[in-house]
Amino acid sequence: MVDKEFDRIILGIDPGTNIMGYGLLGCNGNRMKMLGLGIIHLKKYDGHALKLKKIFERCLSLIDNYHPDEVALEAPFFGKNVQSMLKLGRAQGVAMAAALYRDIPIFEYAPKRVKQSITGRGTADKLQVAKTLQNLLGFEELPKDLDATDGMAVAVCHFFQNNPRIALKEEAGKGGWDAFIRNNPDRVK
Amino acid sequence: MVDKEFDRIILGIDPGTNIMGYGLLGCNGNRMKMLGLGIIHLKKYDGHALKLKKIFERCLSLIDNYHPDEVALEAPFFGKNVQSMLKLGRAQGVAMAAALYRDIPIFEYAPKRVKQSITGRGTADKLQVAKTLQNLLGFEELPKDLDATDGMAVAVCHFFQNNPRIALKEEAGKGGWDAFIRNNPDRVK
Repeated sequence: MVDKEFDRIILGIDPGTNIMGYGLLGCNGNRMKMLGLGIIHLKKYDGHALKLKKIFERCLSLIDNYHPDEVALEAPFFGKNVQSMLKLGRAQGVAMAAALYRDIPIFEYAPKRVKQSITGRGTADKLQVAKTLQNLLGFEELPKDLDATDGMAVAVCHFFQNNPRIALKEEAGKGGWDAFIRNNPDRVK
Repeated sequence: MVDKEFDRIILGIDPGTNIMGYGLLGCNGNRMKMLGLGIIHLKKYDGHALKLKKIFERCLSLIDNYHPDEVALEAPFFGKNVQSMLKLGRAQGVAMAAALYRDIPIFEYAPKRVKQSITGRGTADKLQVAKTLQNLLGFEELPKDLDATDGMAVAVCHFFQNNPRIALKEEAGKGGWDAFIRNNPDRVK
């Protein structure tokens, strides 16, 4: 299902209790290629347990189809209240379980860190993140639901994490990195 | 591994981030029999991901060895802070994922509900719960770590839930389990 042209494949997941976004990123040296992105609608499933079951099954299916080498998750550490954090924790736990079951290492990134890494601003909105990714990965249309690009964002964030020099180059080179350049004039070569 | 003498087997889990307690309960009509109980030490594993991996693997291994028909979890809905609830949610989610992966229905009970169901008091401590279970299930020695009996407690709570007549009798006795056992020597083994 996946070309052999990639050194590594990163599965990025933005686990939520209503919608889960995911992105598959093929990496070869300094290059990245989008292999796929999408969302899993969970609202339509009745009951918390069924939602969790679907998250696990879909994550496992993505893993078994694409054989990612690493799984990166967007994982907020603080939220509005304990009730929502428990639910979110469960959704995260289930997604993590799928990766851990297949012995794939997992990496977590706070939402602010993901946005900072992609757009240069930790307070960027979904659309800004999506448009920057569009430039970066060269996909023609933005997905209808930007939770999909949120899933891809964490995969790209993880790629930059392991390739700090590339991240700088990319950030400095792309037109969409105005904010980064403004905020980090000393880091632009 | 398990006798054929049981109508159903309940796996009770008290998922925590440092210790996970579990209990296996064989049920036949009104009768219950302890099939096993224990704890999984998680403190010794470095890193959150490895702990979660161990929870998943051990839960899956318990399920595959004992083939429980239902999994009951002790699941607090409120905690001290969002950070601890996120961690707890992940531990719960991973334990749930193992059950859901094997298509076993899961049931959740709040800690107060479990204690109430076993001892007649929602504020009972671990030792009171353990001693009542010891009477009820007839095991000779209390386990060293009472997290194990906490795991069993949620299995027994779930059994009572599905056997309201037995539970009702218990309540009618108004003397807690000691009175129930005195009044119903045939119900317990």
